[in-house]
Amino acid sequence: MSNPGFVAVLEGSIVSMGDMGEASEIKADRILDAAGGLLMPGQVNSHCHAAMSLFRGLADDLPLMSWLNDHVFPAEARFVSEEMVYWCTKLAAAEMLLSGTTSVADSYFYEGQAAQAFHDSGMRAVAAQGVIDFPAPGVPDAADNISAAKEYIERWQEKDSLVRPAIFCHSPYTCSPETIKKAKQLAMDKDVLFFIHLAETKTETEVLLERYGKSPVQHLLDLGVLDAQTVCVHCVWLDQEDINILAETEAKVVTCPESNMKLASGIAPVPAMVEKGICVGLGTDGCASNNDLDLFGEMDMLAKLHKVAGMDPTILPASKVMKMATVEGADLLTLPNGCGRLQVGSPADCIILNMDQPHFTPFYNPNLLVYAARGADVEHVIINGRVVVEGRKIVTFDLQEAQKRVLELAESVKKFAK
Amino acid sequence: MSNPGFVAVLEGSIVSMGDMGEASEIKADRILDAAGGLLMPGQVNSHCHAAMSLFRGLADDLPLMSWLNDHVFPAEARFVSEEMVYWCTKLAAAEMLLSGTTSVADSYFYEGQAAQAFHDSGMRAVAAQGVIDFPAPGVPDAADNISAAKEYIERWQEKDSLVRPAIFCHSPYTCSPETIKKAKQLAMDKDVLFFIHLAETKTETEVLLERYGKSPVQHLLDLGVLDAQTVCVHCVWLDQEDINILAETEAKVVTCPESNMKLASGIAPVPAMVEKGICVGLGTDGCASNNDLDLFGEMDMLAKLHKVAGMDPTILPASKVMKMATVEGADLLTLPNGCGRLQVGSPADCIILNMDQPHFTPFYNPNLLVYAARGADVEHVIINGRVVVEGRKIVTFDLQEAQKRVLELAESVKKFAK
Repeated sequence: MSNPGFVAVLEGSIVSMGDMGEASEIKADRILDAAGGLLMPGQVNSHCHAAMSLFRGLADDLPLMSWLNDHVFPAEARFVSEEMVYWCTKLAAAEMLLSGTTSVADSYFYEGQAAQAFHDSGMRAVAAQGVIDFPAPGVPDAADNISAAKEYIERWQEKDSLVRPAIFCHSPYTCSPETIKKAKQLAMDKDVLFFIHLAETKTETEVLLERYGKSPVQHLLDLGVLDAQTVCVHCVWLDQEDINILAETEAKVVTCPESNMKLASGIAPVPAMVEKGICVGLGTDGCASNNDLDLFGEMDMLAKLHKVAGMDPTILPASKVMKMATVEGADLLTLPNGCGRLQVGSPADCIILNMDQPHFTPFYNPNLLVYAARGADVEHVIINGRVVVEGRKIVTFDLQEAQKRVLELAESVKKFAK
Repeated sequence: MSNPGFVAVLEGSIVSMGDMGEASEIKADRILDAAGGLLMPGQVNSHCHAAMSLFRGLADDLPLMSWLNDHVFPAEARFVSEEMVYWCTKLAAAEMLLSGTTSVADSYFYEGQAAQAFHDSGMRAVAAQGVIDFPAPGVPDAADNISAAKEYIERWQEKDSLVRPAIFCHSPYTCSPETIKKAKQLAMDKDVLFFIHLAETKTETEVLLERYGKSPVQHLLDLGVLDAQTVCVHCVWLDQEDINILAETEAKVVTCPESNMKLASGIAPVPAMVEKGICVGLGTDGCASNNDLDLFGEMDMLAKLHKVAGMDPTILPASKVMKMATVEGADLLTLPNGCGRLQVGSPADCIILNMDQPHFTPFYNPNLLVYAARGADVEHVIINGRVVVEGRKIVTFDLQEAQKRVLELAESVKKFAK
């Protein structure tokens, strides 16, 4: 590696950057020596269900509807509690931090507990409370789903500069048109983001066609909920008209290739969406369908999948994929100005990789960060100027405790699954 | 993790295995304490061009023919030397060992140098000398390609119990029918494996159709070179008749999903080959088209790719993929009996993973080794009873020296590529 440099941070933001030669002019309270490392913006995981770490690998190699209805929903009905969400989100936060993710968009139930876990881990998060027209964890009567979300948003709206609340409508097949409209109205009233799973499976598009006579995207358009503060997750089953609608309404999209591949949901038309100028972020989805939260692996999968799917090796070049996992994620989550970038004035959300490894030798260009890097290469993580991982150790909380708590919960899950 | 156990090794082989309770009866000269770790068979990388580590990430996001003709072949013509093959193979061996690969099938030029590098690293290898109808590194006159291979095989045939020689015909589009037949005859005379790139791209099938009026597989069948000692690499563009031929002749197949995806070569019909009972191993290909040599990542990619390609999440379950990367690789490379398995009598080729990590928490079942494990999780590596990696450090050779030598070579490559 060449060009050793420095980044100076004050009050959470990058205040100057340059060659090491100029660094002597700077007086620092603390110096993190990362000689030989590579500094880059922290990654943005634009879709996750962090607490589902409890169900990691519980049910593999199954169709989505059976995975969801026979395994995930029953396990969730039985095991999701405030305590579970707190500890399992904390474990997921550790996994994300240790693999270089500094910001996450999370969507689950008891989201106040998730927000608290992100707060306690030092992670930047948009934490969205789940809304669904079934009895859900923490919301036994579905009629209360909007008021529960409202109460959560009000509780977290001004609480933490790093953790912001939002709303997550599960999907157009599990939420009625009324619920979707009310949830979006609440999001607008409170000026928070509105997330929704959209067009994930072929079955979903068939159900929507039968129920409403239209595609999932057209359905949301007609409900008036597509705009720049709406984040549509998955978007696998779109036709060109759907893509045009998303582009025209400036709705945002998150693609989760590993989850879509593992569940055989399909291949999202990411190159076509990019072509239309849609802002597309990258997400891991919950690690029950992945089964990890490593955005480096997700970048590699995304880049390679679309090349072979389109039979064109120039599709989604590494540089574009890296942008999706940083800049575009930050933009679609409306993170503070400069997030996802390394520039003066940006919040200091950075990661440092250990480059002294065979798989980085030689290092001709940054494409290798997409095609060869993995989460385990991350040595240090800084969020908003605070060191949260140092020498591959979480320094903001007791990881052992979180692991122990999750393993205790997992013992009950094991008995249930038998 | 539960059920702590032990594995006892004598003269390179596993002589007993059991619960820790029984271990006290065993007297060992050396004990490797791996408490809390997971022990599994070392992985078998069934296709690699190890020395191409020098060209890692030199030319990304390009079509195969341009990648090969405009970048790889010119760089090879200029930079491949005995010294280059030795050091770059050694670096690749380090990368493979550190990611849990204990055996490799390598194919390149100056293969004696590669064989020496594998020998010096303590890795188990089938090292195949390249044969091509162009002037090649070490074989300036293509007319000498068979005699050069013969001389290499004779030199290495009885030299090392871990490193065995073999022949690698580059492909049916770069080798004449005469060359292919002679190379296979030599392989039969010497009782060594015969490797060939086959049906990798659509262009190749078109060229073969035009040149010989038949498919690549049919072409090899008619040349009489398909049998149980022939390993066909890639096999992307096959029809059902080709698959039947491979099954009937008992030819072996290696699939390299990451390389095929990145170069947009296509998706090999792996599930259809498996269905027909063909032995299919897993390879990384050279890391110029991947861009790493991590078989854990390759397993994940393989499993997920075929699920979404076949729109069926039950295709290639994790357990089958794990077999392809261990048992089937060992079988197709005709490695010593028991390789790729953990059983009494097997050569002690084992790896131990560090399970005390968030992405392995919880660990409900071994599928997680396919869907969440990565090379960096490998803590210790044992090959033929010898510890070659301990606590993530290569102990058989000086990795720093290999990295330094490769970086020196890379400086020249950089100038050339500009």
